[in-house]
Amino acid sequence: MAQIYERVALIGLGLIASSMCHAMRRAGLAGEIVGYARSAETRDIAREIGLCDRVCDTAAEAVKDANLVVLCVPVGAMEAVAKEIGPALKPGTTVSDVGSVKRTVVDAVGPYIPEGVHFIPAHPLAGTEHSGPRSGFAELFDNRYTIIVPVEGSDPQAVDRLTSLWTGIGALTETMDADHHDLVLAVTSHTPHLIAYTMVGVADDLRRVTDSEVIKYSAAGFRDFTRIAASDPVMWRDVFLNNKEATLEILGRFTEELFALQRAIRQGDGDHLHDYFTRTRSIRRGIIEAGQDTDAPDFGRVKARKK
Amino acid sequence: MAQIYERVALIGLGLIASSMCHAMRRAGLAGEIVGYARSAETRDIAREIGLCDRVCDTAAEAVKDANLVVLCVPVGAMEAVAKEIGPALKPGTTVSDVGSVKRTVVDAVGPYIPEGVHFIPAHPLAGTEHSGPRSGFAELFDNRYTIIVPVEGSDPQAVDRLTSLWTGIGALTETMDADHHDLVLAVTSHTPHLIAYTMVGVADDLRRVTDSEVIKYSAAGFRDFTRIAASDPVMWRDVFLNNKEATLEILGRFTEELFALQRAIRQGDGDHLHDYFTRTRSIRRGIIEAGQDTDAPDFGRVKARKK
Repeated sequence: MAQIYERVALIGLGLIASSMCHAMRRAGLAGEIVGYARSAETRDIAREIGLCDRVCDTAAEAVKDANLVVLCVPVGAMEAVAKEIGPALKPGTTVSDVGSVKRTVVDAVGPYIPEGVHFIPAHPLAGTEHSGPRSGFAELFDNRYTIIVPVEGSDPQAVDRLTSLWTGIGALTETMDADHHDLVLAVTSHTPHLIAYTMVGVADDLRRVTDSEVIKYSAAGFRDFTRIAASDPVMWRDVFLNNKEATLEILGRFTEELFALQRAIRQGDGDHLHDYFTRTRSIRRGIIEAGQDTDAPDFGRVKARKK
Repeated sequence: MAQIYERVALIGLGLIASSMCHAMRRAGLAGEIVGYARSAETRDIAREIGLCDRVCDTAAEAVKDANLVVLCVPVGAMEAVAKEIGPALKPGTTVSDVGSVKRTVVDAVGPYIPEGVHFIPAHPLAGTEHSGPRSGFAELFDNRYTIIVPVEGSDPQAVDRLTSLWTGIGALTETMDADHHDLVLAVTSHTPHLIAYTMVGVADDLRRVTDSEVIKYSAAGFRDFTRIAASDPVMWRDVFLNNKEATLEILGRFTEELFALQRAIRQGDGDHLHDYFTRTRSIRRGIIEAGQDTDAPDFGRVKARKK
């Protein structure tokens, strides 16, 4: 594939940035990849494993002469980073990000973007429970959606170019406005994560059932919650603090439905339970048909067992 | 491996029974496997795919001269089946089951077990979202726990023999009393399933976010809920109706914790969120170390993509 950006600067070197490194290299999309991370330890690891072509000791140095700057830091850290790099950005550069919330990022970063610099927020919907510069892999974005969130006045050509990068990395892309993005993600990601964290926290805190029992017998359903409840705590703290309204709205709907099911259990209303459990099957079929999961038994874990 | 039972009768031919068929055959544990299912369609499919050595048209006929009878029907159907087969059971036979709830099965089935017949309930903690006679596979129980729940007066030799069958099938085994089993499963399985069903139901019912959006963007966390929310509706209706007390107890704890997190979001209490999300990571590590999940990125789905 042809090079899309001569120089790409990644600010923050966690799971997403390190996966972008591997994926851009796989496809030859960037002339040079420059990286920066706040922690010296992370920068040292990045240098040791040769993650980027160059690791800088300040964000301002990293973005110098970059054609694309991608902010890959927790949502709560976006504003400080934007403030720091703003003066170093040259006209014609595109600034994007990979934050899981878009409205607050648009509001926090926008004011620091100089005239002539293109600001095009984005969000790749991909992840694992691992974090840090060693956790990345080139296939992370394959066949997963990246949502591009152009702001008012975003240059269409710059949007197309960023879109090409993401498709070149293996992703499918869609555009969406910031508020709708935040609501969709509250449903498909943020509320599910909060619920998983809650369930795992409850299991960890019971006196009559030991942690060892919870762990041994987790394959009966609980296990699937623990993966998402092992995601990065700082990233997720920031998600909830920054997508407060939409998350609380969906949580309100969730508890309403949960109480209705709880009452059905208490009253022995089998029909209510059966009808509800039947309805939810069709969504699963849709996900398999859309290629967003495999229907291999047990997530294809069979081969991974007994290691 | 040596044969353990000369004749095994499986009552109900869904995911668990069909997986037991394949697994017993793989290891040569049963001389003859006889099957019965209530629906003529299921019996026909079982015959067509050669699932058992013999498929009978009544449960009583299927259990005749069996050394082991395993009830593989939804929990709510156990009593009727026990009543039907009771008179056909010969002394020395072992009757077991695979129900997800144990106290109500013990109480419902026990009275129909004749003198001299060993009643030893059990519960294999393994499953997928698929059901029916075609869904089974020999590896389902490999490295997963089967909990054996001996009742008062269970013959130790008969318990050992049943335990050998499960270990021969690939499972790890533990013994537990019925009430503790039901509490442990309320935490590790029943409440997580109810919560997953609820979340998927909420997502399916929003006007401002379409089903198509939920499906496309499911990889961000929601997807992991849809697998367990696609499980068999009859089975799960019966689980909740029959493990009411323990499920409601754990649900109460869950909503208590969820409300505390919800308040932290509303009040912007980042420390509370961060502390909670940090605590839940250790449980995940325990599960990986215990071999009950893989830490392959994205559940090892990478290779399954783009099919």
